[in-house]
Amino acid sequence: MPSFSFQITHQSKHHAARAGMISTAHGSIETPIFMPVGTRGAVKTLTNQQLYDINAQIILGNTYHLMLRPGMEVIEQAGGLHRFMNWTRPILTDSGGFQVFSLSSLNKISDKGVEFRSYLDGSKHFLGPIESMQIQKTLGSDIVMAFDECSPYPCERSLLEKALERTHRWAKSCRDFELQPHQNLFGIIQGGVHLDLRQQSADALKQMNFEGYAIGGLSVGEPAHMMNAILKHLEPFLVKEKPRYLMGVGTPRNIIDAVLNGIDMFDCVMPTRNARNGTAFTWSGKINIKAGRYAKDFSPLDPQLDCYTSQFSKAYLRHLLNVDEVTGLTLVSLQNLAFYLDFMRCLREAIKNETLDAFYARVCEIYPE
Amino acid sequence: MPSFSFQITHQSKHHAARAGMISTAHGSIETPIFMPVGTRGAVKTLTNQQLYDINAQIILGNTYHLMLRPGMEVIEQAGGLHRFMNWTRPILTDSGGFQVFSLSSLNKISDKGVEFRSYLDGSKHFLGPIESMQIQKTLGSDIVMAFDECSPYPCERSLLEKALERTHRWAKSCRDFELQPHQNLFGIIQGGVHLDLRQQSADALKQMNFEGYAIGGLSVGEPAHMMNAILKHLEPFLVKEKPRYLMGVGTPRNIIDAVLNGIDMFDCVMPTRNARNGTAFTWSGKINIKAGRYAKDFSPLDPQLDCYTSQFSKAYLRHLLNVDEVTGLTLVSLQNLAFYLDFMRCLREAIKNETLDAFYARVCEIYPE
Repeated sequence: MPSFSFQITHQSKHHAARAGMISTAHGSIETPIFMPVGTRGAVKTLTNQQLYDINAQIILGNTYHLMLRPGMEVIEQAGGLHRFMNWTRPILTDSGGFQVFSLSSLNKISDKGVEFRSYLDGSKHFLGPIESMQIQKTLGSDIVMAFDECSPYPCERSLLEKALERTHRWAKSCRDFELQPHQNLFGIIQGGVHLDLRQQSADALKQMNFEGYAIGGLSVGEPAHMMNAILKHLEPFLVKEKPRYLMGVGTPRNIIDAVLNGIDMFDCVMPTRNARNGTAFTWSGKINIKAGRYAKDFSPLDPQLDCYTSQFSKAYLRHLLNVDEVTGLTLVSLQNLAFYLDFMRCLREAIKNETLDAFYARVCEIYPE
Repeated sequence: MPSFSFQITHQSKHHAARAGMISTAHGSIETPIFMPVGTRGAVKTLTNQQLYDINAQIILGNTYHLMLRPGMEVIEQAGGLHRFMNWTRPILTDSGGFQVFSLSSLNKISDKGVEFRSYLDGSKHFLGPIESMQIQKTLGSDIVMAFDECSPYPCERSLLEKALERTHRWAKSCRDFELQPHQNLFGIIQGGVHLDLRQQSADALKQMNFEGYAIGGLSVGEPAHMMNAILKHLEPFLVKEKPRYLMGVGTPRNIIDAVLNGIDMFDCVMPTRNARNGTAFTWSGKINIKAGRYAKDFSPLDPQLDCYTSQFSKAYLRHLLNVDEVTGLTLVSLQNLAFYLDFMRCLREAIKNETLDAFYARVCEIYPE
């Protein structure tokens, strides 16, 4: 039995959107899916049980952070990331590329990869396609991401072209690396905001026959309409029968726009990071729960969402955040991820029921951007 | 039907220890009991559900902190603390006395109470016996504590005598205050480390016929043997048929010593506060989980405890604490409270089975102090 498959269960009649099912060695994933980010072996402020309770089907782990702490020796002896963190469902790991290019100021880029200094203690490390594959093999994630060069926005075309050439060479090195039998490799399409470069990247990666294709280097500062234009342009050039993953995106509005352009997978720190700033995502839109007007609002945070946090009033959650009680961060993080996952469930339903246009109108109203 | 009763279900044959059951309007409490501290409307880093899961039977709320934030107007409109925080089991609230005497540097003490400045914004507040009763009536806790003057250690005898006289006068004011019908008032015995003053305080309060009696002003810096000597001396002078509460105590060893001297109720921030410093309480003793020797220790934190945290390895918990993941604080706080509650359960069993001496020897081995 193959450890990985992707079945499209419904193709929208009027949009590129599709509903499907990814099967992995650790269970299946309904698409379109949102993947909570568990950077350093935990989704911030939450337990695995709380994530199971809100029906998180897959989480993301970060190669860059995990290679620095606890380090691969610990993860290897633990028997991989699933066993280390006792998470039984699928895991996707990123390649570390995004972090070494965006986080490290002290780095030297060569054709072999990136030499960088740890943000923790200044120690030297090296990450290239081979190292990234070795680490992700040790992590044992179900979905492994190819090591790519993520260019900033804006970026000169000549630099983008150079980065793209390197990204494709690295993708080939990753493809040639032997992972664990249950693991599956996704290639990452780059090319900035240039439609021709994006298309060229999609074509180059298609030749390497990855198990899925990600679109990287978006949501890095470019306007949303530009991102949507790229997705729309790219869609016909993407392999239909493979899952498509838009990395690091985004708001509910960003997500539905991308789903309409045929994207199946998403991850973003927004629901958990914004929770810690007091922003709640609800079926009534975004709420700044710290605002004074909620001081005596004893209605539930989101009566339309069936989630543990719905038992608590806005006044109580506001109080917890205002006195810096960690329990408040946990409850709002739980709400936000529960909302995102429920939002994806509704999206899947809307695809299956051919009611995407009505759902789109509703989403635009509560999440205009 | 009375909203409060206390039944001794088993009196130890060889010790003053007893097992019993307190009934309140929000449910019953098996004694001896440990009460997790929910200072500002939440037990730090945990949800109510996690507390229910480890069988927390009663929690504590702090008058001083809640009167400052969110303030009584919010709690009153919420319909009391139970409804504000959506906690369905019993709650005990302290009087605020301990905090105004120990936390506030800018305070003026008179026979009416204490004028103090908020540690938050410097605003002026006043807390005396009447104010404390008014606030606790609004909070709607099942067990209300009398407002007392908590003296430091060491303290001159003349000052202790003066404080004691005031504490008894205030206790009478509290006793005369009409609480909600479901609420029950405990008096607080003071008197520092002077056996005669302690005895005098117990006698004075006994006259006022409280629903329970607390011993305050201990565990404030005096040696443990002194605390035990006071408890031993006091025991015959305490009302047998009322619950006895030793405030702010303590280590597992402190607790078993006090139970042997007839104490029924305990609260302490130690399990949650120490969790945040990386100290885990387990059936193998205290563990500093951040220590390097646990970096590759993949055994469960406490295999003898049936608790959610037992699913995770020492290496994983150490990693989470070392990278400041809040999930780590949650898991270790949960472990520590689960241990304390399991420890109390074993204590109750040992009382019922007349196996206290053997259990005492075991506890002294793993928690020598």
